[in-house]
Amino acid sequence: MRRFSSSSTPWPDECCGGDRERLRAMKVDGKPMRSVWLEPDGKTVGIIDQTRLPHALEVRRIAKVAEMAEAIRNMRVRGAPLIGASAAYGVALALAEDPSDAALKAACELLMATRPTAVNLRWALDEQRQAVAKLPPAQRAAAAYARAEAIAEADIATNRALAANGLPLIESAWEKKRRRGRVDILTHCNAGWLATVDWGTALAPIFLAHDKGIPIHVWVDETRPRNQGASLTAWELLHHGVPHTVIADNAGGHLMQHGRVDLCIVGTDRTTAAGDVANKIGTYLKALAARDTGVPFYVAAPSSSIDWSIDNGLAEIPIEERSAAEVSRIAGRLADGTIASVTLTPEASPAANPAFDVTPARLVSGIITERGVATASRAGLLGLFPERRRRKAGG
Amino acid sequence: MRRFSSSSTPWPDECCGGDRERLRAMKVDGKPMRSVWLEPDGKTVGIIDQTRLPHALEVRRIAKVAEMAEAIRNMRVRGAPLIGASAAYGVALALAEDPSDAALKAACELLMATRPTAVNLRWALDEQRQAVAKLPPAQRAAAAYARAEAIAEADIATNRALAANGLPLIESAWEKKRRRGRVDILTHCNAGWLATVDWGTALAPIFLAHDKGIPIHVWVDETRPRNQGASLTAWELLHHGVPHTVIADNAGGHLMQHGRVDLCIVGTDRTTAAGDVANKIGTYLKALAARDTGVPFYVAAPSSSIDWSIDNGLAEIPIEERSAAEVSRIAGRLADGTIASVTLTPEASPAANPAFDVTPARLVSGIITERGVATASRAGLLGLFPERRRRKAGG
Repeated sequence: MRRFSSSSTPWPDECCGGDRERLRAMKVDGKPMRSVWLEPDGKTVGIIDQTRLPHALEVRRIAKVAEMAEAIRNMRVRGAPLIGASAAYGVALALAEDPSDAALKAACELLMATRPTAVNLRWALDEQRQAVAKLPPAQRAAAAYARAEAIAEADIATNRALAANGLPLIESAWEKKRRRGRVDILTHCNAGWLATVDWGTALAPIFLAHDKGIPIHVWVDETRPRNQGASLTAWELLHHGVPHTVIADNAGGHLMQHGRVDLCIVGTDRTTAAGDVANKIGTYLKALAARDTGVPFYVAAPSSSIDWSIDNGLAEIPIEERSAAEVSRIAGRLADGTIASVTLTPEASPAANPAFDVTPARLVSGIITERGVATASRAGLLGLFPERRRRKAGG
Repeated sequence: MRRFSSSSTPWPDECCGGDRERLRAMKVDGKPMRSVWLEPDGKTVGIIDQTRLPHALEVRRIAKVAEMAEAIRNMRVRGAPLIGASAAYGVALALAEDPSDAALKAACELLMATRPTAVNLRWALDEQRQAVAKLPPAQRAAAAYARAEAIAEADIATNRALAANGLPLIESAWEKKRRRGRVDILTHCNAGWLATVDWGTALAPIFLAHDKGIPIHVWVDETRPRNQGASLTAWELLHHGVPHTVIADNAGGHLMQHGRVDLCIVGTDRTTAAGDVANKIGTYLKALAARDTGVPFYVAAPSSSIDWSIDNGLAEIPIEERSAAEVSRIAGRLADGTIASVTLTPEASPAANPAFDVTPARLVSGIITERGVATASRAGLLGLFPERRRRKAGG
């Protein structure tokens, strides 16, 4: 295990300009860190092995495309934006070794097969193909590295804008409490910087508000069955210094009933043009409790996650059914520090594992995007993205 | 570990009459079983060590009151009705050894200290004191055993009545589906026979409907943090032969949105005179989803769980905050068969663990009691328990 040090991250000057320092705000114990980066050798790529979190911070140095494919397949890197950026770096690694058309094709096929349903993966590979296909082989690797870095920096800029747009919602909750006590925010799953390149989506305004001195406290849903809240969100908040408390997914409604949640902010895997929100299973239950108790419920949605081709999330978004073993077994740290899986259910009892649910737009107080906060409706979203008016049925 | 056999259970004739066979319906792999019983020697008491479930069915033979106190304290037996019956047997064990006043007092103090907030525990000890206090020492042990058995049988009779009263709700769901497919019932936590002496509360009508040939399928909420659903409810259903599927607590809302739940039945720890229901944390979230999707939501409440002295559950029922370690750690079976606990959260992240929540009466479709099904309101409950009208503010 290698502890990350800030000096090992070369932040390119070309794409961030004066915002550079402000854009790289996520910290691990005081040191800036992002979830994927080019190493100082200008060739190999660093990642955090997220399967080891929260028990160990292990950095991997990826030198070959096959290693990056393995890291994506085995969820060492996960989260749609991060998968896209990692795959883009993977293409660069492949071309640094062999810049031929055949190698480009093989690399894209290898990477595409790792998580076939990930929209950002396909998009990032298409970007890379367009960036290098017409170049002479000798120029391809450099162009691919530059494109990968641009994809990563564009994700950071989007999330930073999202943070700025969400900040006033937290400030307003703080004012509403007459700046007394703390602002309690409930979140579900992990929509933090580990799921993106930096900042995150739902956690981005929370990090920004914390950095600006608003006393934030986050209720972290553990988010069974994969426990991304207990493992990743808690870890991010802990190491950035944001006060937080992990709770069972069952607890949020009770906390809202007793006035212990000021607002909810969650991420989204796919939001319809009408504002229905597909997100990690259990999100719908928290939105219902928020509505029942008068707590604002916000969704952080970079426009890349808005599917302009559909309106009705319940009818039109297929829900992935994942392995029953994720429910019947769980991994954690034994007393001796080793990681082990334990079985929770009777061996012969079946389990079901729908991975996402759909929160109807009527339960959503607002959708935080990189262009501002929209009401959860077609009119609201089109108000921020008017260019989508003419392509209502498009992608 | 000793496998239970039906021949080792002496069922007393005196209290059940012709109902005897019908009352003892819970089966483990075809053999009748209850959660606490007098052994054939007429002196020692058998229990199932519930801390070993679902991984092993281990029966313990309890010979001394100190062993029973240990079993209650360490939750080898749990569930309010079962704690009461077990404590009553514990007094009998003490008096069999030493029938003196001093021994009676010591036994009651020892048992009372095991789970100080359990209402049924105090009640059962009071019953035993009344049953034996005025008897000559030589008659006390026999009287205490008889009283313990009567307490156990009364619990079974209550739950059997509850089963019969809940059955028509399931039959009606079955008719509504024109007897096609199966009846899907969602339950939360464990309100089965393991929490009582036999039959259970929420599971009682489910067992009865299954035994009568209605094709039942139960969605079992795993019920974090203590996972009573994944470990106890799934185990009960599996060994009685009731089809079921374990799900993360997050999944129920999604299943209801997609028409995959016909009704919900849950238990209760305390129900107010106005029909507000305190039950395991997370119950409120399922009630909200049921209301949002038009799924009937029933609560099985033996009258002993109705607190006639209060109306407003949210304001008047204190919610126990349990150990954070129940959220940050979980126990299960390692690949080699041993039971181990694993840590799920970053070591420095705090966790909170409210154990119950309150579902407002407005979200409850009906309360199933041993006297019938009441609407969740003061008028509804008083209609079934008119004798409570005159003691509105009483206990």
